Amino acid sequence: MSNTDIIVGEVVGTALLILLGAGVCAAVTLKKSKAQNAGWLAIAFGWGFAVLTGAYVSAGVSGAHLNPAVTIGLAITGGTEWSQVPLYIASQFVGAMIGAALAWVAYYGQFQAHMADLANQPEPAETEGDAKAGPVLGIFSTGPEVRKPVLNLLTEIIGTFVLLIAILTQGLNDSGKGLGALGVLITALVVVSIGLSLGGPTGYAINPARDLGPRIVHALLPLKGKGSSDWGYAWIPVIGPLVGGSLAALLYNVAFA
Amino acid sequence: MSNTDIIVGEVVGTALLILLGAGVCAAVTLKKSKAQNAGWLAIAFGWGFAVLTGAYVSAGVSGAHLNPAVTIGLAITGGTEWSQVPLYIASQFVGAMIGAALAWVAYYGQFQAHMADLANQPEPAETEGDAKAGPVLGIFSTGPEVRKPVLNLLTEIIGTFVLLIAILTQGLNDSGKGLGALGVLITALVVVSIGLSLGGPTGYAINPARDLGPRIVHALLPLKGKGSSDWGYAWIPVIGPLVGGSLAALLYNVAFA
Amino acid sequence: MSNTDIIVGEVVGTALLILLGAGVCAAVTLKKSKAQNAGWLAIAFGWGFAVLTGAYVSAGVSGAHLNPAVTIGLAITGGTEWSQVPLYIASQFVGAMIGAALAWVAYYGQFQAHMADLANQPEPAETEGDAKAGPVLGIFSTGPEVRKPVLNLLTEIIGTFVLLIAILTQGLNDSGKGLGALGVLITALVVVSIGLSLGGPTGYAINPARDLGPRIVHALLPLKGKGSSDWGYAWIPVIGPLVGGSLAALLYNVAFA
Amino acid sequence: MSNTDIIVGEVVGTALLILLGAGVCAAVTLKKSKAQNAGWLAIAFGWGFAVLTGAYVSAGVSGAHLNPAVTIGLAITGGTEWSQVPLYIASQFVGAMIGAALAWVAYYGQFQAHMADLANQPEPAETEGDAKAGPVLGIFSTGPEVRKPVLNLLTEIIGTFVLLIAILTQGLNDSGKGLGALGVLITALVVVSIGLSLGGPTGYAINPARDLGPRIVHALLPLKGKGSSDWGYAWIPVIGPLVGGSLAALLYNVAFA
Repeated sequence: MSNTDIIVGEVVGTALLILLGAGVCAAVTLKKSKAQNAGWLAIAFGWGFAVLTGAYVSAGVSGAHLNPAVTIGLAITGGTEWSQVPLYIASQFVGAMIGAALAWVAYYGQFQAHMADLANQPEPAETEGDAKAGPVLGIFSTGPEVRKPVLNLLTEIIGTFVLLIAILTQGLNDSGKGLGALGVLITALVVVSIGLSLGGPTGYAINPARDLGPRIVHALLPLKGKGSSDWGYAWIPVIGPLVGGSLAALLYNVAFA
Repeated sequence: MSNTDIIVGEVVGTALLILLGAGVCAAVTLKKSKAQNAGWLAIAFGWGFAVLTGAYVSAGVSGAHLNPAVTIGLAITGGTEWSQVPLYIASQFVGAMIGAALAWVAYYGQFQAHMADLANQPEPAETEGDAKAGPVLGIFSTGPEVRKPVLNLLTEIIGTFVLLIAILTQGLNDSGKGLGALGVLITALVVVSIGLSLGGPTGYAINPARDLGPRIVHALLPLKGKGSSDWGYAWIPVIGPLVGGSLAALLYNVAFA
Repeated sequence: MSNTDIIVGEVVGTALLILLGAGVCAAVTLKKSKAQNAGWLAIAFGWGFAVLTGAYVSAGVSGAHLNPAVTIGLAITGGTEWSQVPLYIASQFVGAMIGAALAWVAYYGQFQAHMADLANQPEPAETEGDAKAGPVLGIFSTGPEVRKPVLNLLTEIIGTFVLLIAILTQGLNDSGKGLGALGVLITALVVVSIGLSLGGPTGYAINPARDLGPRIVHALLPLKGKGSSDWGYAWIPVIGPLVGGSLAALLYNVAFA
Repeated sequence: MSNTDIIVGEVVGTALLILLGAGVCAAVTLKKSKAQNAGWLAIAFGWGFAVLTGAYVSAGVSGAHLNPAVTIGLAITGGTEWSQVPLYIASQFVGAMIGAALAWVAYYGQFQAHMADLANQPEPAETEGDAKAGPVLGIFSTGPEVRKPVLNLLTEIIGTFVLLIAILTQGLNDSGKGLGALGVLITALVVVSIGLSLGGPTGYAINPARDLGPRIVHALLPLKGKGSSDWGYAWIPVIGPLVGGSLAALLYNVAFA
């Protein structure tokens, strides 16, 4: 994999992932969106097909990691060279921030309408029943329903473990030989599965770039009334996925390789 | 690709796309439809699987463009000859108009019941919270939730960019070699993704023929009380997709080819 | 194709199709079902995946017609011998009746609870806003929302045309060579598409065996308070699909073959 | 298949299946879950994609049985050696219990919040309209809406018959040759189908390990107010699937082999 391939594939692929992922959160959350209140199924399929789109575009270029936990998991199992890990991760963060900014552009009118509406409400609305996060932070980053760091960390570890064990073992069945189109599709549906099944407590970051990149964009955006970027929580969706992905890679090395 | 293949594939394929796409909008919108109020997930899967059906039927015949933005994007990247572009686009418009008319026939009884009901209401109902569009225009064509041309154009540009970058890069992974059945399926799911994630602001035309063809049919149909065809908005879902598709093709030529 | 293969594949495949299809209607309709009121998306995916299951089981045995309109369409285009058509259709009807009876068995407790509840209501409940059909007929057979034979026929013709043109053209792209697993999957999703997009007016029979077989079972079942089997409508979901499928086959012969 | 492969594949695969399956039930049921009340479609897709994930990971290792009814069905049809059946089943039960425990960990905060809320209610809440089961048992195990053992058994027999006939016949079409990725995907969608269509009466265990393993975990968990594990019902989702799977295997041997 050339450095250019890594940069092109991971920047474009992760930008698509976050544009579409933040996009579905915006679509379901914001006023003046045709999809407002479309519900959790829309979120789970929306993020899963965001993975599908980003991975389909980048699979033949960079191998479609799109996630530092995937890159590190593949490095642990020998699927990626450790020397390329920093470039992968840097490209993923750049892509994630571009994607979050594009989602903001695509929903600019909705953000304006939503914030204007909030400004007229007597009490401040809070995102996800969580007083420490601004009212639209949930479009950019994840947050817990029950704020307990150890539990939140465990949930992110378990979710990312599932993602990585599915990715790492796909060479063992006939969709193997690199990440083919069918492997991309099934991986995307595994992400739908994680969303439906393990997304309830923390919103399933399962990807440090997916959470931290857009959180930085949230902090930078000139969005009146946006409130806190909830930096106190920001380490959990970074550390949890890295731990969960590494555990899956270790299990793979011990039991599957 | 022979001229006959282009005409057959694009007319039939685009007619299926619009019949099923306008059909799901009618199904969810109109009174006396079993699917009334089925919600945004039904819209997003309905349009995605409309693409699946139209593209599956035409992939082996005309390559399943079904969209002038796809044809022009492929011409820019060398996947289609510029000399065939006019025939592709003309066939797509003819197909789109046939499809819209067939959706009207399939839901004729529902349109009658719906318009009769509207006529009995004291105040005129408006489609999509938008006073400039007739009450059932949303079945045929898209419209904005927040009417701001520059923003609406940006949203359509971004949505079509996503569609085209996914289509253009599919030769880079193993579903390549023309648009195989698996490529058709994944492209359809990318359209579901765009619908879920980027459809909220403008209803995701992402295809000039999909929007303008049915809008013309709306203007021509003998439907009492149909109201405005909202011609003031009509240029946005034409220009936006062409710009977004071309930008994706340029990025492809620069970074992926 | 041997006669035994036809009988085994079509009886078992169509029984699975109708067991799962009538099953999802029972699941969504009846009291004491965990899926009650799951909505139109459940119906559309339920019937589509019923096709998937029935066709996946029978594809390698009988070619997975499961529908007289498919058998006749394939006979017109040369994909099936005319001499085998009667055995295909007879097997499909036998399978459809077995499937409907099994759905009744699987939901026996729910039918009992539902009918007992209806018996206690002051006014008779009607299925699908249609006074001519018994209250649970919609679990077995289709019925119109607006009862106008010509319109209902047109809707069924259009829906079946879409199904058949998708089936007939699949040999033209790379999922061809008999009905492979990917072709089965995409055909099932085309059925989801037809359900979402064209199911609103009549409930999309698009298959004479799917509608008439279970209607006969409805007429025979010892179900207290079941009411009319609506025989006045029964010809439409037989004739409409046969006409629509034949038109698709003729178009295929003229334009695609 | 080596004993190690069976243990690794079945323990990990069944653990993933139950983690994600119990997970979606927790997600939809518990307070302080972002997916609360996401509905039956979420349940059906959640369990289907749980099968997808578990089977995708284990297909190349142990053949992805994940279900004693599948193992016995394959033994009857000659796809698995009888001597390996006990190890398969033991591994499945171990995996199922691990998965249920992990789902409890992932939703620990939600369980706490939910039980605390129930403790404050004047009357005890019951799961699934069924006074014999504790309030969160439905997250772990299935239960009937109408409690009649013969009917419940019949429903489980029919559901598992559908699952097994789909699995056993997949060698007959072109997705054959072991359980390839496409076969895994379609089998998962068959499980979605069974959930949508046959899950209404009993919650579709269709797998003894899926039901009994988590029920044991429910009995062991230190969860205040958890109530009865409903042992009176526990034999039905064990015996029903074994009978239904065996009947499908016998039909396969007689008619399809």
